[in-house]
This record gives sequence, C-alpha cells and structure tokens, in this order.
Amino acid sequence: MFKMKNKAFSIISLLLVLAVVLSGFLTTESLAQAFSKTNNTHNGKAPKYVFLFIGDGLSFPQISSAEMYLGAQKRTTTPEKKALDFTNFSGVGVASTYDTDSFIPDSASTGTSLASGIKTGNGIINMDAAKKVKVDPITRKLKDMGYKIGVVTSVSLDHATPAVFYANQESRSNYYDISLQLANSEFDYFGGGGFVDPTGTKAKLTNAENVMDVAKKNGFKVVNTKEEILGLNNESGRVIAINPRLDASSAMPYTMDTKAEELRLSDFVKKGIEVLDNSKGYFMMVESGKIDWACHANDAAASIHDTIEFNNAIMEAYKVYEKYPNDTLIVVTGDHETGGLTIGFAGTAYSTFFNKLEKQTVSFEEFDKIITSYRANTQPENQKLVDLLPEIEKAYGLIPASSPKAGANAAFVLTDDEQSALAAAFKRSMEDPKTRKLSSSETILYGTYEPLSVTLSHILNNKAGISFTTYAHSGLPVPVYAIGVGQELFNGSYDNTDINAKLKSITKITK
Amino acid sequence: MFKMKNKAFSIISLLLVLAVVLSGFLTTESLAQAFSKTNNTHNGKAPKYVFLFIGDGLSFPQISSAEMYLGAQKRTTTPEKKALDFTNFSGVGVASTYDTDSFIPDSASTGTSLASGIKTGNGIINMDAAKKVKVDPITRKLKDMGYKIGVVTSVSLDHATPAVFYANQESRSNYYDISLQLANSEFDYFGGGGFVDPTGTKAKLTNAENVMDVAKKNGFKVVNTKEEILGLNNESGRVIAINPRLDASSAMPYTMDTKAEELRLSDFVKKGIEVLDNSKGYFMMVESGKIDWACHANDAAASIHDTIEFNNAIMEAYKVYEKYPNDTLIVVTGDHETGGLTIGFAGTAYSTFFNKLEKQTVSFEEFDKIITSYRANTQPENQKLVDLLPEIEKAYGLIPASSPKAGANAAFVLTDDEQSALAAAFKRSMEDPKTRKLSSSETILYGTYEPLSVTLSHILNNKAGISFTTYAHSGLPVPVYAIGVGQELFNGSYDNTDINAKLKSITKITK
Repeated sequence: MFKMKNKAFSIISLLLVLAVVLSGFLTTESLAQAFSKTNNTHNGKAPKYVFLFIGDGLSFPQISSAEMYLGAQKRTTTPEKKALDFTNFSGVGVASTYDTDSFIPDSASTGTSLASGIKTGNGIINMDAAKKVKVDPITRKLKDMGYKIGVVTSVSLDHATPAVFYANQESRSNYYDISLQLANSEFDYFGGGGFVDPTGTKAKLTNAENVMDVAKKNGFKVVNTKEEILGLNNESGRVIAINPRLDASSAMPYTMDTKAEELRLSDFVKKGIEVLDNSKGYFMMVESGKIDWACHANDAAASIHDTIEFNNAIMEAYKVYEKYPNDTLIVVTGDHETGGLTIGFAGTAYSTFFNKLEKQTVSFEEFDKIITSYRANTQPENQKLVDLLPEIEKAYGLIPASSPKAGANAAFVLTDDEQSALAAAFKRSMEDPKTRKLSSSETILYGTYEPLSVTLSHILNNKAGISFTTYAHSGLPVPVYAIGVGQELFNGSYDNTDINAKLKSITKITK
Repeated sequence: MFKMKNKAFSIISLLLVLAVVLSGFLTTESLAQAFSKTNNTHNGKAPKYVFLFIGDGLSFPQISSAEMYLGAQKRTTTPEKKALDFTNFSGVGVASTYDTDSFIPDSASTGTSLASGIKTGNGIINMDAAKKVKVDPITRKLKDMGYKIGVVTSVSLDHATPAVFYANQESRSNYYDISLQLANSEFDYFGGGGFVDPTGTKAKLTNAENVMDVAKKNGFKVVNTKEEILGLNNESGRVIAINPRLDASSAMPYTMDTKAEELRLSDFVKKGIEVLDNSKGYFMMVESGKIDWACHANDAAASIHDTIEFNNAIMEAYKVYEKYPNDTLIVVTGDHETGGLTIGFAGTAYSTFFNKLEKQTVSFEEFDKIITSYRANTQPENQKLVDLLPEIEKAYGLIPASSPKAGANAAFVLTDDEQSALAAAFKRSMEDPKTRKLSSSETILYGTYEPLSVTLSHILNNKAGISFTTYAHSGLPVPVYAIGVGQELFNGSYDNTDINAKLKSITKITK
C-alpha cells in the first residue's frame, strides 16, 4: 500500500516534471518542489493511544553524547555507543525549527508549531506572530473527539512547552494566566513539576484566586506526595500530580540530583498511562524540560542523565505500544537544540573521554548552592578558592596539581590555564550577583551563570572532549522518531509544523 | 509491498517480544534489539546508474548553515531557509560514524566503512584495524559485474575518501602507492583534483615510475585543460581528468575562489555522466572534499559555498534520475562532521546574521597567501597590522572603529576585544611558521592555522552568529539522503557500515 502510494506519487511527480520540461520552465528550484512535499496524509484508522515526547533542547548532539556516555561505561577497547532505545524506532525524520523571529527559536514558538501547526514569534503561546489570533492546540480538538488528555513535564506545569498544549498567551512569562488556563481546562492529567506563580504574586496581582483552589473547584484532584501519586489510578478522576521535591523554579530536580527513592519523569508517565486509561483513548505530551536548562548552563553531565531518563520515560509508553501495536503511536522529538553542544573540542582533537563525566556527582544547580552558601557565610577578606577545592573534587573530580592524589589521577588534574580560569571565576563568583558587572569577554566565558560553576562545567566538558558554543539555543534541526500507527509519515525532511499536520491527519482531526 | 513487509516484520517482532516476555527475560535492552535492526535487504532489481555523494566533513550543521545563508539572501522579513535540493530526497536516515579508534573518526576509516562495509582504524584504507586483511570496496565488485566506475573529488585523487574506492593501504599517507593503485586500476573515470606525490619524491623513493606514465601505459587518457576535459565523451575510453588549476595540495580551489569561467565539481560530475554512459550502467562516487578543509580551518563561508556547489553536483546526477527513475539510485551522505560547527554563539545568543558572511570574498587559503607575502616582503621592524587593514576589509568586510566608514557599517566594525585578538594573532602570524611556538591557550585559539586568518574567520563567524569548537572532526552523526531504486532502505537510524550493506543489496553484490 505504501509502495503503491509511492509509485503513484512517483508517476505524478514524473508527469509534473515532464510538464514543466515541456513548458520550458525547468529550473532547479521547480524540480526541488516536485519532490519536496512531505507526506502529511494518513489513510488508515486513528490510534487510540498517542504519545508526543519532547526533549526540550534535545537534538542530535544531546542524543549522541548520552549514547557515547553509556557506551563508554562498558569499558570496551574500541568505541561503542549504546543506542537510546527510541532512536531505533522505525520512523526517522529531521525537522527544521526556525520561528518568525529567528533561525534560533524558543520553546514557546516551537511548541506552538508542534501543538498548533503554525509558525509564530519568540515567547508566544498559541497565538499568531502579531498576537492577534488565538490557535487551538491539537489537545483541545482531541478532547472534543473523546480522547483524554495528559500533559507531563519535568519542569513547572506552566512552562512554555507544557503551556502550548492547553493555553493561549501573548507571552510565556504570563505564568499566572497560563496556570489559570490549566486549572480551567477540561484536561485529565497534569504531572511533574509545580507552578511558578500560582498566587499571582509575581504578576503583582491583588486578590488573585489561588490557582490550586480554582483547579480543585473545577474538579481536579491535586496531589503532591509520593504515596498519593503512586496511589492514583484510572478511577482517580482528573488529576494534577506535583512532584514532592521541586527546585526554586518549581521544576523537578535534575535526574542526577534525584535520590533513588524519589520520583522521576518516567514515574509520572507510567502513572499517567494508568490515570488516562479508558476505552476511547488518550493523548499524552511528555516534556523532558531540563535537558534544555542543563545545556543552557553548559552542564553536559546533567544533560546526559536527563536524556537517559527521557529514554526511560519513552520506554514506559513503549510498553503500551507493545500491548496495542495497532492502536498506539509514539512520536519523539526535540523543540530545538540548546547550547551548541559538540562532541569535539580544540584541545582534545580526535579523542573523547566520556568516562570523565562519570566523576560529576551533582548538577551545576546543586553546586551553585555550595557557592552561594560559601559566599554568604565567609567574610570577603577570608574567601579563598582553596576552601572550595574539596567540594570541587567531590562534585567534579577535579584536583589541583599540588594535590597528593594528582599522581594517581593525572586525567583530572587542573592545568595551569584551568587553574587560572578557576581563580578568575572564583573572584567573580564571590561578588554579589545582583551588582556583578561582567565585561563582554567575561559574558562569553560565563553567560549569566555562576562564574565558578559554569567554569567547572567547561573544564570537565573539555577534558571529556566535548564543548558548547552558546548559553542560548542553536539553529540545528531536530530528529523525529516514531513508532506505531502512521510511523512512516515521519520519515524524511520537513518542518516542525509538519509534525503537527501529521499528528492531525493520523488522529483524523479535520479542522 | 513495503507495508506488507512492515506488517510481517511487526508480527515477527511482536512474536519475538512475546516469546521474550513469556520466557521471563524481558529487559529494555532486549526490547531495543527487537526493533533495532535496520533493513539492509532490497528485493527489487538493481539500478543501472548508482551515485554515492560524500560531503567530507558534512553533517547537519554544514547543510543548515548553507540553507540559512541562501535563505538570508532573499532578505525576507522573517527567517526563511532555502532547502538544498538533496535534502528533499524521499529516503532520509541518520548514520553513526565512529571508528575502531574513536567516536571522532577520520575520512580513511569512515570511507572504508562506506566503501567496504567494515569498521577500521584511523588512517587505514580498506584494511582491517590490525592492518592484516585487505577488503574489497564495492567498486571492484561492481566492476566485475560490468558496471563502469567513476571516482570524482574536489581534492586530490589520491586523498583518503577517493582512495577507499580503489586502493588498500595501511596508511592514507602512502600517496604514491595509492596513486599507483589508481593507475593500475581497471576503473573508468577519475576526475577533479590531481596527485600529491605522483613521482614518489615525497615518499623518498628513488627511480619510482611516474604515476602518470603508468596510467598512460595502462590505457588511461590523461587530460588537464578545460578544452580537453569539456571535449570528453563516452568514446574517450578510460580517463583521468585533472582540473587545470590546483592548490598546493593538488586539490581544486575552493568554490568561492573559483572564477566564473573555471571548472567546478559539478562540471566533473556532468562530464563523468557522459564518459561513463553505457548500456550496462555505472557507479560514480563523488566527494566534495574541501567542506572538510574549510571546517578544519573554521572558515564558515568557504564551507557554505562548497556545500552549495556540492548540491549543484548532486543535481547533475538528479538529471539522470529524472530520465531513468527506475534505473537510478542517488545516495548522499557525509563521512563525519568537521569543526564542531554550531548555528549559535554565546555573544549573539538568539540572533543570526548570515548576510554578514556575504562580505567574505575569499577563503582563508587565499588570505593566507596575502599574509605570507606580507611577512616575506616586509622587514620585521616595519610589520604593522594597519598595513593589512585594507586587505582585511576587502576579504572579510571588517573595519576598525577608527575607519571613516565605521558609521555606515556598524555591523562590521571591530570591537575592542576583536581588535586585541587581531593584534595578538598578527604578532604570531609575523613569526616564521616553522619556528613559531604556541602556548596551549594559543593552540585553542589558532589550531595549526595562520593565526591572523583563523582569527578573522572566527570574528566574522561570530558576528554572523555561528561558531566552531574544534580544528578536528566531531562525533556528530551524519544524515543520509536517497532517491531512486531502493531509496526506502535509507530511512531510519543505522551505522555507516549499513550504508555499504544497503548499497550491496541494492546492486545485488552477493559476496
């Protein structure tokens, strides 16, 4: 059938090309158009269980670095990567991500493209670039058609990527309004992080109703203990499940900072599958949001561990596919690349040492707390980098040349250049962040991050043979992986808006 | 048929999975294996016209940057890329590139994987990693089956990538021996660059026969003028066609340094199609070799222009596909990424300014000549950066803040940091390259390149919003694009050795 369609398409293409040739208007560009159209039309029946996994900031470098890190753990004599399972899905494509403002887009605009199929501007949630017209995400259409809807994320539930699946806002920063739209939505399962501004305090609203109260009034069950969350099932009704431990941004902790007994993204997916289970089917969007945050901070290890957990979360959905291969579709993509991550660095040339990243025991976020605490509790005249060396060794494995352990751990000894870079960063990190003024060259070195921790990340990354070029996103296209009903539509090169068109056709959304 | 096979495969997979479940050994890893096998089996007939295009150093960043550069030329108000035609081919996949030495491979090992289907070590041409066993490239097998064979490259014909299609050597540096294997091969068309060591002088051989003489003795017609080359046709017999103008490495000039009347890679492909034309068919490997060299030198503009010309060369093959869609296969890939190119830079964050790269009028290779000449012809005590400012403006568009043109060309004015970087690089560039000693931090800044020109490239790249992280290759996977007979086999995620397996199955090579 696919082959048939392909043949028909080939014949049509050929006729088109011939027609163009005969009319004498043959140009390379018109040729390109003859074969450029990606197939967004699904003729079979719609799947009942539809999963869209979005790795925020995830593209080829984030996936490859995780695969090489896992491969390096095997300690084989020749390089061996360990494929993340989802990269073996049969449908594989490449999607462009630019928005109406830039080749380097943000999560609000790219999320809108994925959720609603239009291109829009930086920071906009489901509105056109002029901020005049609201557009409906597929979730609303699917809800109307009888699907239950789940939105899961490792960051706050009102963050840009989850927001595009239930809100319309001129700005992703309207956290209170976004969360109010969540509380007023008719959707069924929200899980993962919490809320940035549930009381409207940050938006400087007076007498704003607490979003949690609105949600409860609207029939949502709100839970935030491990026991309550694990106790949820398909008789729990509509649920907002918030991870017991949240960071300062109301996001779940980085996977590498998560204790064995704590919940992870995969737990929220597994639970979502139970909560949403019903005879008419469901759509679940799952975002791994801190791959992006880690790469913004150039923290390769944190990105890798969250990418591995992203794969674990996808494998929960894969169990549904295994049970119902003819009724399930799983699509995995990124919204854009973050950090300009490369597997390669000028100082290490053709070598990589992914094993070195195993020495990093905490994310930059946790190390920032150590710096903040030291800064607050040590008199300026007593602040010395040497005081933090034990913490640096514990967190990153890095040791000074003067350490008695240096001989046995040559690979982790700080070079003179690295030591100087750390000293300069330490000096800046001891200044009050609120009044700290960086030169333009220091901005390249540290971005808006804690100078000492971002420098430690850079040093360890570079020793491992990898590098970042930016604290923002990049313009690299993203991969798309699909398995299940309609998977073949996801082969090829296309735009992120085509992912939405394919999902609409596969689920029979007609308007 | 494809769908049928897919269904059969799904059923088999399902049974396999069930069997595993029932036997109680279900793990994520075994699951992965159940769906991980890429399809390397083609059941239809073999195509007569087979093209393998290899962009050396080309991966997603090289393609995207060229597409964005072309798009930016349209001067639209919102970002618009102009797709390179080959990215619209229907078959799209992603291939891993690691070799037996590193996740960051070289062109000899990856070329061997593409040509012969095995993994091997850095620098090895069609031998196993232990350098004991020789392996046959597909070209020899296809020649035995009656196909004519063409090998085209923009670099020297004895360079690693072309060499893997006709030679077996322990080292890619055995230029004389490699070229001797070319001259003794039974292949039909070699076109593009020249030879690095045709006399054996560099290999310090005495009484070595000139490779050109060997080739002529073996019946090759050797031509190296534009007239002779354009006069070739399918009655010219076996041909070695060498571009009239070669650089110091016996490669064709960069596309951006090529005059309108000079030959380009696409001309050698077009001519190859004529020379090889015969009723039994042909296989042509075409390498764009200087995308790699440009990215090694972090020269984004040179990479972009050669990538655009690579697309032009592919479009020559596409004309064959148009004529004989049921008898043609075109496969396009890269052997590895070079340079760690990213569309994004810490200093420009979410903005790109691809238009700025239009100001670059020559490659670093040409600018190096200006530096070399100035150094040789100016007394050390008289050497001043200010002398080169007019040349810098002409080549890169960059101007000092003190220039009277600065006001009208703010985007190209050198910042204080950039001016300091240029001054430091100029100082180093005025030293004799043979005795120049760089510190480790300078090696990160300049690699092994002329400090002044590589710094100019970095400045212009960064102003355009792009960046490189290495002077070597990187571990990024490469895209694969295919159109024609067997194109569907190239969908999915697989290894570079699978590309060889797919080509063998499609062309019915059985051993």
